[in-house]
Amino acid sequence: MKIEAVDFFYLAMPEIHDIGDGSQDTLLVRVRGNNGQEGWGECEAAPLVSIAAWCCPMSHSGCKPVSYSVLGRIIESAADIQSLNAEVRRNSFDLLQADHTLAGIDMALWDLLGKQHDEPTWKLLGWKKPFPKTAYASQLFGDTPADTLQKAQRVRSDNFRAAKFGWGSFGIDLAADQAQVRAAREGLGPDVALLVDAGTIWGEDVETAASRLPVLQECGVLWLEEPFVSGALKAYSELSKLMRNPLRTAGGEGSHEPFMARNLIDFGGVGYIQIDAGRIGGITSAIEIARYAETHGVTYVNHTFTTPLALSASLQPYAGLETSSLCEYPVEASTLATQLTLESLSIDHNGQVHLPERPGLGMTPNPATIRQYLQPVEINLGDQTIYTTPSL
Amino acid sequence: MKIEAVDFFYLAMPEIHDIGDGSQDTLLVRVRGNNGQEGWGECEAAPLVSIAAWCCPMSHSGCKPVSYSVLGRIIESAADIQSLNAEVRRNSFDLLQADHTLAGIDMALWDLLGKQHDEPTWKLLGWKKPFPKTAYASQLFGDTPADTLQKAQRVRSDNFRAAKFGWGSFGIDLAADQAQVRAAREGLGPDVALLVDAGTIWGEDVETAASRLPVLQECGVLWLEEPFVSGALKAYSELSKLMRNPLRTAGGEGSHEPFMARNLIDFGGVGYIQIDAGRIGGITSAIEIARYAETHGVTYVNHTFTTPLALSASLQPYAGLETSSLCEYPVEASTLATQLTLESLSIDHNGQVHLPERPGLGMTPNPATIRQYLQPVEINLGDQTIYTTPSL
Repeated sequence: MKIEAVDFFYLAMPEIHDIGDGSQDTLLVRVRGNNGQEGWGECEAAPLVSIAAWCCPMSHSGCKPVSYSVLGRIIESAADIQSLNAEVRRNSFDLLQADHTLAGIDMALWDLLGKQHDEPTWKLLGWKKPFPKTAYASQLFGDTPADTLQKAQRVRSDNFRAAKFGWGSFGIDLAADQAQVRAAREGLGPDVALLVDAGTIWGEDVETAASRLPVLQECGVLWLEEPFVSGALKAYSELSKLMRNPLRTAGGEGSHEPFMARNLIDFGGVGYIQIDAGRIGGITSAIEIARYAETHGVTYVNHTFTTPLALSASLQPYAGLETSSLCEYPVEASTLATQLTLESLSIDHNGQVHLPERPGLGMTPNPATIRQYLQPVEINLGDQTIYTTPSL
Repeated sequence: MKIEAVDFFYLAMPEIHDIGDGSQDTLLVRVRGNNGQEGWGECEAAPLVSIAAWCCPMSHSGCKPVSYSVLGRIIESAADIQSLNAEVRRNSFDLLQADHTLAGIDMALWDLLGKQHDEPTWKLLGWKKPFPKTAYASQLFGDTPADTLQKAQRVRSDNFRAAKFGWGSFGIDLAADQAQVRAAREGLGPDVALLVDAGTIWGEDVETAASRLPVLQECGVLWLEEPFVSGALKAYSELSKLMRNPLRTAGGEGSHEPFMARNLIDFGGVGYIQIDAGRIGGITSAIEIARYAETHGVTYVNHTFTTPLALSASLQPYAGLETSSLCEYPVEASTLATQLTLESLSIDHNGQVHLPERPGLGMTPNPATIRQYLQPVEINLGDQTIYTTPSL
């Protein structure tokens, strides 16, 4: 099958708020083969910039538009998708945004290949069966410990078996943080897994981060997520060494290519590696890390805050890893995100998510939702129109 | 002084060739203050994508366009530029291309601040005097060892005191590589410093890279540059441990934020850290690495392949470091690059480059060159034009 067309649809809520909700827009990607079939994927963040990375002119041999390495290629097997990935990275290594653009295209190719072979993507990736994942509910800490207690009780009554609290004012005052973590544990009860997300608040300040470890250990927290900014390997390494089981560091969502994640494992000492398939370059790069994590005694977790399509794509890479059993599950996504696909990925009575057995990623974008939120883009260079949003 | 306008000029040669020459296009940035003064900078690679990172709509609180953090800010001191940098990185951490856009703006701000204070940028950066740098001529290996011998002889007669050879077919066949390195040394004579650039040819294959070490040691090569892809810290670390003085690994040009460079120093064991100020986020990020390198016993080197403006900007961050005495000097740049500025940075009879004493970066873009190579850009989103190339 030859790649005949790659089409981008920039979808956005009518108003974008200045909050940490990454589901307010998306860049949907449709790849069409010359067999008449189509696959769908999504790029994480800054849709216009990722479109520009697709259609920009070449700067030099190592800075070609992503389109150069994709259009017209033959895709028949998993190996063909892998070599397309290598080609994009070789031809566009000096085009920073290329990783995001590649991510959505790569997802769409795995979706398309699955439809062509009438197999779910996880099977094409080599997994014998998809293990269900325990969904954790991502929550902001409440404004007060009493609010956090209530939020935690609600999570528990909603059947979640794991919950993550973070952001808000967490990380600024030690006593307040202690009260918040204890309230979360009290509300969840002893059996629901508790995770804490520091949202990079401490930069690279190991000492301040370390002062939170006693309360995290006391409350049986499984992971402390992003105590530091993505690249601060030395700080990650030092803090990781101060932790006692079961507490471990978690990080990696900022990785936009596989080595960044591998370095967190090799040098940062993380116990959990969190991969956003929409940012690291897609399913191909994500499964590379899932396998690397497995052989290095690290637990793989998805990072997903948006649509059911992105969630399906982010679970495929570690579907067959039984011991990597947690998954991030978006609970507060925008209507754009929740209505993007005709199907959804819901949580069963055990708080678990099951990947579909349908071909490819098993998620069909809803044309009505696309039409409702579509932002038409046109880019002109000199007297040429080099990009215009295609028709649906 | 308030930042009133930031204007981008996308310049490109009439034809872009599929070769490793990064001087075929550039994104020139002009920043205007409300005091009537202006500063100039340049972003490395993929101009259209960096423009999109300036003007795109917000995706969420951590993915704002670069313009959000820049327009209207007050810049009176070096500290103001530093806090602007921190602001861009905080507000745009999920916008991958933002680092490139920031780079050109940051350079222009240092240029502007210099003009405002009537001081060269290196002085505002805290350096007492700028030490001259020994220019190394960047060359491709010849097609045959005889060609390389001739090239090396020419470099020597052109008064260069250092030369780098690389790319071409280097890295594929051990015997051929040995013959090439020996020819380069023979042509340079014993006193001209020899550097070798592997151009990431070995991916992360330490064994193949290590097989080249004997001939590099035999020929007194100072550094082996980019044996591996940017992120392969483990491979860098292993190879670095196999080297004997004076041979060291060099790398870092791919760094698009300071931690990537610091990790190469902390975990990769490089002896030379090579920073492209147009990619790492500008002069502010570059001097952070220059200071880090100095305190960690690592030599700082610029990575510059393009214009005199980019070269001046790339030398400022380590102008005052006497022991970091080498500099990359573009010798085969396009006419667009060589004619971009009214002034140039030439090499003296000792093969050294001296930074200008003029205010700011000391380089004035030539309006005629800008007009000749300008590519007008227009970006439309919905029924709004969100970007159009400003008038000169």
